[in-house]
Formats: sequence, structure tokens, C-alpha cells
Amino acid sequence: MKLILDLDTGIDDALALTYALGQPDVDLIGVTTTFGNVTIDQAIKNTLNLLSLLKREEVPVFKGSSFPWGTSDYHTTEDLHRVHGVNGIGNVELPESSKEVQQQAAIDFILQSAEVFGEELIIVTAGPLTNLAEAIKKNPTAMKKVGKIVMMAGALTIPGNLSLFAEANVLNDPLAAKFVLESNISFTMIGLDVTLQTMIDYQDIKQWQAIPTKAAKAITEMTTYYYTNEYSGEEFGGALHDPLAVAAAIQPALLTQVLPINLTVETEEPSIGRTIGDMNRLNNSVKNAVVGLAIDSNAFLDDFFTITNRILMNAK
Amino acid sequence: MKLILDLDTGIDDALALTYALGQPDVDLIGVTTTFGNVTIDQAIKNTLNLLSLLKREEVPVFKGSSFPWGTSDYHTTEDLHRVHGVNGIGNVELPESSKEVQQQAAIDFILQSAEVFGEELIIVTAGPLTNLAEAIKKNPTAMKKVGKIVMMAGALTIPGNLSLFAEANVLNDPLAAKFVLESNISFTMIGLDVTLQTMIDYQDIKQWQAIPTKAAKAITEMTTYYYTNEYSGEEFGGALHDPLAVAAAIQPALLTQVLPINLTVETEEPSIGRTIGDMNRLNNSVKNAVVGLAIDSNAFLDDFFTITNRILMNAK
Repeated sequence: MKLILDLDTGIDDALALTYALGQPDVDLIGVTTTFGNVTIDQAIKNTLNLLSLLKREEVPVFKGSSFPWGTSDYHTTEDLHRVHGVNGIGNVELPESSKEVQQQAAIDFILQSAEVFGEELIIVTAGPLTNLAEAIKKNPTAMKKVGKIVMMAGALTIPGNLSLFAEANVLNDPLAAKFVLESNISFTMIGLDVTLQTMIDYQDIKQWQAIPTKAAKAITEMTTYYYTNEYSGEEFGGALHDPLAVAAAIQPALLTQVLPINLTVETEEPSIGRTIGDMNRLNNSVKNAVVGLAIDSNAFLDDFFTITNRILMNAK
Repeated sequence: MKLILDLDTGIDDALALTYALGQPDVDLIGVTTTFGNVTIDQAIKNTLNLLSLLKREEVPVFKGSSFPWGTSDYHTTEDLHRVHGVNGIGNVELPESSKEVQQQAAIDFILQSAEVFGEELIIVTAGPLTNLAEAIKKNPTAMKKVGKIVMMAGALTIPGNLSLFAEANVLNDPLAAKFVLESNISFTMIGLDVTLQTMIDYQDIKQWQAIPTKAAKAITEMTTYYYTNEYSGEEFGGALHDPLAVAAAIQPALLTQVLPINLTVETEEPSIGRTIGDMNRLNNSVKNAVVGLAIDSNAFLDDFFTITNRILMNAK
């Protein structure tokens, strides 16, 4: 299968990229980038450097959206810096890649790939849904040909992580998210409902620490930053948000319960960014979303560490 | 099986009572009453009169909670009058029953029944969770013996009906609802997620109109009031909220998808009354709630009309 990863390349995006690159039957045909955990320029830089570090410089990187719908600028916040570091990857300094971002725009690459690969193409988004929204807006017919779209986004049965209502990727561009969810494009939502069912801790990360490559060292450092800061420094551990979306795309059997539903996004306070059932389409027999509600957490973690260990070991 | 219905006897409670009385293998051992759609006194009066109308005066009626936790009084609102009528049953005047409410308090009847019948007992609540909360608070050990507790309450995957967040039964006593949901008592939540999947319309109600009994006439009149007013008079129809909880209790196979989950209730604005996953118990392997997410709507409607037609026909 052909895979496009859409990343706002922070730390769990880096883990998702590593995990995707290590998948045996997956051809990562490109990474499209977006603002979110970082600015678009930082996302591009981090992605190029990570691909170089992982010895996969041949994977092309495309520039996507620079800011959310309805705005004209995007800045990261102190809160984001605490989670992902100022540079998005835990302030770890990676060697500069010699590669550059592609000339082709992200959404054009997505649309072209949809036409070329159709059913064979999987798109996994790990950031705001802006690139996806723009691709659907520009050519919905092409996007309907995509085999599968899986997004790490939202929260349906539990509170959000940026507010009582909103998960970060949705809150970073509620208008684009609403556009995607209300489109008739089929997708799988991997939200906090399932990502918070997969927690890793310091013992898990020690597996990487033992691997004698620069890639393993860098991934260990940024992951340590991520999981120490995200939960106040005392409790070490957290969710594998973005990697789980990759897993759900490639091994859907890991999802032990899903809910077919039509969704919308609230775009006004007090609950801006809330993903919730769309009352206008409640009893439509066709549902364009499938929401992950339960996963086989142990099977996912086994697979995640088996694959990431291998690619980190081989990245000499 | 032995059934206790807990009702705040408005119109869909009346339908739930009718439906429960007509179930072939169910022994309705009592109705406990609560404030909610109406005051406690009106709930008692409506229940006694409905049982008399349906020729089932032998079913005992018990007085439960008069007001929500944290308050000392309860009044119905204009909005409630628009939905259920000033008297809770669409302003239909029923003949006065000659029976009186029992001396035993509702929660004592519930607890005694739990001890006597244990696994054989099903409790279905169709109003605020106050009686249930008080019974659990008074004797959690007895309540753990109950075979099944099913509540029409809440909304998990769609917005509420009294606010963007809250369903009416939960909002009528958020503190009691939180206490029940966070207790270790197992229950099935039949919320708006599924009740709004079952809509009836004027054609459906015409089945009752053709039945030549006083009971059928009264039920037709109150149902016409309910479904005309609930949706602004133009669109006629609506959900069978409370009857669906009875159906789910007696024929659980009607639920085609359920989610095991631990739930809580938000008790502060802006989202007071929201039922949502409990982050403190997210990854507990034991889940005390099961939430209905999908139902076989056609099978339920067939059963509902078959049974209500029969009991309305026989209530001569």
C-alpha cells in the first residue's frame, strides 16, 4: 500500500514517522506538512532532518498549510513549547538534511496521488485537518478515490486535551475540521478516546536507549522530553497519539470497537473544537465517519516497539 | 422477571408504563415516582390514574424524591409545560383512581425488592436519577444484587436536548446522576444517542386512534400533544425516549451496539449535566456502564406497537 503522512512535526509525529517508515508492507510515498505543533517552516525542517537521520532521505516532503482557516498567521504558544519544545522535537538538535522541500504543494501532491493510486492510497493525518480540508475543497472527486483516510483528531466519549471539549488538532483549525467531518469523504477518527488507552512509560523508552545509533539517541531524547513535560515532570509517560493513527490505518484489526457515525465540529464558544454527532445527519443510513472506541493496546505496543526498534537499529 | 419502573410521569413515561404492563413475561412489581417532568405529587397522581385507566390498579405506586440533590424545592417550567402539558400528560384529564400511594417510601421498596428478588429484578429509570442515587447511598450492597439497571438518561455521542451538553433527566439532578455514574453499580445508559434513532409520526399513532377504549383515546390524545408540541407544531413526531429504556431492559438484543465505559457527569457550567467518559477511570479494566449506541429501530417499533395495541385493546 501507498502511504502519505500529514504531519505537524512534533514529537509524537516523529514517532509516527519512524513507525511508518519501519512498516514492512508500506511504501511511504511522501510526507505533507502543516502548522500545528510547530510552524510550517519548522515542520518542514524537522521532517527533512528526521528522514535524513533515519536514512530515508529519498522520501519527498511537501509544504502544506501555514495557518488555520479564517486566519492569516500562526504562532506556537508557551504551552506547546512545554509539550514539544521550542523546535517541536524536544529541543533536540538534529543534523541538517541536505534535501529540500518539494516545489509541488502538499495538496497537489495529495490530489495527484489520489488520482494515481486510488484505492491503494492511505492518508494518515497527525495534525490539524487543514491540508485535508483544502484537498477535499479543491477536488472532492479525487479525494473520494482514496482508499482510506485516518486522522488523529478529536475526542467523542471523553473530554478534550486543550479544553473540556477540544482535542488539539481539531482546536488548531475548527473550521477546516468541520469542513472535513461534514464532507461526504469517508474517514476513521482516532481520537483521544483510543489514544489515551495506550500509555507508555520510562521502561518502554529504555528499549530505544540501548540501541547504539544516532537516530535512537535522538528519538530517546525527544521522547524523554515529551513524556516528562506533558505530565508535570513527576509522572513519566503518556499516550502515543499519532503512531496509533498509523497503526489503525495499516492494521485496522487493532481497533476492537468502532462506531459508524456522522460527525460535526462546534465552532463557537464555550465548546469550540468539540467533535460530536451531527444532529442534521443523525439518522442518515450512510455514515461517513468511523470513530475508534477501543483498541488492543498490548498488541499495538508490541508492534510499535518491534518496528521502531528495528528501524532505529538499522539507521546506521 | 420482576420489574420496577421509576417514573416522573409525563407523556413518554405513560407510554413506557403502558408498554411495560403489556410485556408478556414481565411482572411489574411497582412503580416508584420522582419529580422531573412533573412535581412528585403530580407524578403520583398521573401514575395512579394511568394504572387505573389501564385496568392494572393492583400495581403499587411509591413516593420518591421531591427535589434534586442540593436543593429543597422543585417547580416545573413553561418549557416543560409545552412538552408534557401543565399536568404532565398533555392536559388530558384522566378519571381519578380510587387507589392511593403506598406508605412505604420508594427507596425502601427498591432496596427491599433488591434483597428479595436479587438477580431477577430489573429497575428501569425514566426520570432524574435521584431515587436510584438515594437507594445506592443508603444500601450499596443491596443495590449490587439487582439483576439489571437501565436508565433513560444522558447523551454521549450527540448534544443534549436541554443544552448543547445535557439531557433532561441528568440536568434535572446532576449531582445525583454523578453519584450514580461514579458508583460501582452496573447499569445500561439509554441516552439520546439511541432514543433519537427511534422516531414515530402521526401514522404510527393512528394505530391507537382506531382502538375503541378509553385508555386508547387518552394515550392517543396525550401522545398527539407531545409530538405536536415537542417539534414546534409543524413537524409531527419524535422519539420514544422512556419506552426504549424498557425495551433495552427486557430485550437487550435490540441494542445492536453498546460501549462499555466508565462515566461521570459534569456539574459546573458551561457544561453542567454533560455525561462523558470519566478520565479518572479511563483505563480501569472494569467498566460499570454500558452505553447504547445503536438499536434495531424497526424491531423495537414493531414490538412497541404490537404490545401497546394489545394492552390498549384489552383495557376495557
